[in-house]
Amino acid sequence: MTANLNVKTDVYPTRQSDRPEWIERADPVVYDHKLKQDVVGTEQLAFYEENGYLFFDAFFKPEEVAALRSELRRVLEESRGSTRPEVIREPGGEEVRSVFAVHRDNEVFRELSLHPRLQAVVCQLLGGSVYVHQSRINFKPGFTGKEFYWHSDFETWHAEDGMPRMRALSVSIALEDNTPYNGSLMVVPGSHRIFVSCVGRTPDDHYKNSLRKQEYGVPDQDSLTKLVEQGGLTMPVGKAGSMLLFDCNLMHGSASNITPHPRSNVFCVFNSVENRLEKPFSAAKPRPEFIASRA
Amino acid sequence: MTANLNVKTDVYPTRQSDRPEWIERADPVVYDHKLKQDVVGTEQLAFYEENGYLFFDAFFKPEEVAALRSELRRVLEESRGSTRPEVIREPGGEEVRSVFAVHRDNEVFRELSLHPRLQAVVCQLLGGSVYVHQSRINFKPGFTGKEFYWHSDFETWHAEDGMPRMRALSVSIALEDNTPYNGSLMVVPGSHRIFVSCVGRTPDDHYKNSLRKQEYGVPDQDSLTKLVEQGGLTMPVGKAGSMLLFDCNLMHGSASNITPHPRSNVFCVFNSVENRLEKPFSAAKPRPEFIASRA
Repeated sequence: MTANLNVKTDVYPTRQSDRPEWIERADPVVYDHKLKQDVVGTEQLAFYEENGYLFFDAFFKPEEVAALRSELRRVLEESRGSTRPEVIREPGGEEVRSVFAVHRDNEVFRELSLHPRLQAVVCQLLGGSVYVHQSRINFKPGFTGKEFYWHSDFETWHAEDGMPRMRALSVSIALEDNTPYNGSLMVVPGSHRIFVSCVGRTPDDHYKNSLRKQEYGVPDQDSLTKLVEQGGLTMPVGKAGSMLLFDCNLMHGSASNITPHPRSNVFCVFNSVENRLEKPFSAAKPRPEFIASRA
Repeated sequence: MTANLNVKTDVYPTRQSDRPEWIERADPVVYDHKLKQDVVGTEQLAFYEENGYLFFDAFFKPEEVAALRSELRRVLEESRGSTRPEVIREPGGEEVRSVFAVHRDNEVFRELSLHPRLQAVVCQLLGGSVYVHQSRINFKPGFTGKEFYWHSDFETWHAEDGMPRMRALSVSIALEDNTPYNGSLMVVPGSHRIFVSCVGRTPDDHYKNSLRKQEYGVPDQDSLTKLVEQGGLTMPVGKAGSMLLFDCNLMHGSASNITPHPRSNVFCVFNSVENRLEKPFSAAKPRPEFIASRA
């Protein structure tokens, strides 16, 4: 294996040039069109292919939501005083922003990642077996929750974690009501079909700051404007128990939350077992296991 | 006139104690119930009295909007290099956040403040003649527009400008489309009936920082939570040319704007001529004329 192996096979080069570039997606969006489950039908598969996301209102039962919420509160309490690297603080503050690797460290969230109806949809879309690439709770507290600027997750996973192709997706499960007011996720429908390469080089140990506030792997304003002109903007919101599922390359972001209502969600990223991580494509060394599993 | 005159007659004390306090509004909301115009009817007056705001879709004609937008762009251009105190920058940046006193310094916006249908509604609600207490353009640029945290305008106007009673209102005219995505104004319906006194003392020349980011006159989180529990939250949005009119004591705020779409609005505050400014109620000296007219 030479140092340049991944550069040679890199179909999505990023952070390697001074100019942003648009690259057509070279991978499928839906990997298996033959229905293997009864949670989503062909219309929903077509919607996902076209728009890059699917939204499910009340995907989880009220009793499931209650159990997850109570565990989330416990994790938040226990994380407040913690110095574990898995616990990320708000930029410019000490409030807990995220806790990573909850599928690994917590029994309740491990079970959630194996939830049969959830797994059925994910395996349908990604065509076969999957594993958890990353999981986290995002707390976005009331009054002070900060924004997440626009980004494609895949851009970072490719550059910093060595994820070779677009065969992964994120699941965001609302554990508080998500409203148009409390900093809910916005997505740019259709943006998953374009890879926007970003400018700049990845600094060493970039993740230590980027999880608080990202400064590399940030798409340029012209590209964002053009993507929004083409696909518009939407904000799929629902009550606690709803679920948003979105392609790894979908452009998304969220504004600040000044309302009294926290917007806590569990994120779980599934990657195809056919798409295991290699060496990073644009970073000196891979990020730690709790951010990007090499399992 | 003694130094304590305004303290003796102060029905809305604020920034004078270490604890926030709730004070029932001692003033009417609608000052004249007898219809004197045909722009709003009795139902709208009742809605305003109950909720503290009124929203008008397409209040201005497309040609009026076009003229205002082109003037707004001119003012923005001309303000970029300006060092006039009327031009306020974004916190932590050099982008123009607001330009004050546009009704005084600009012919187009002066005419806007005298717009007959607008004046008719304002005079109806405030019961007789009014003057412009403050005007400004808020630019809230795309991608980087920062939030405005929750506040009652009256709290500041009372504390720092010496506005004695609640007999004023704000008009916010959308000159770009306001959407649920680009940091539009949120209001707490019904909150105008409670005066939430704030803790802390006003520092000297507070306005020089507070117009970028407010740190005094900020309501406490418990009060905000209670107000939202009682009245909920709403975000009256509409296309360019729509108008939001809200009571001086209505709790309002807005999140950041990460979308490509700027959200530029003209604000104009009307005060009753019966309610002219006195000495500040909780500050050493009044703010300058371009922020609070003593005309």
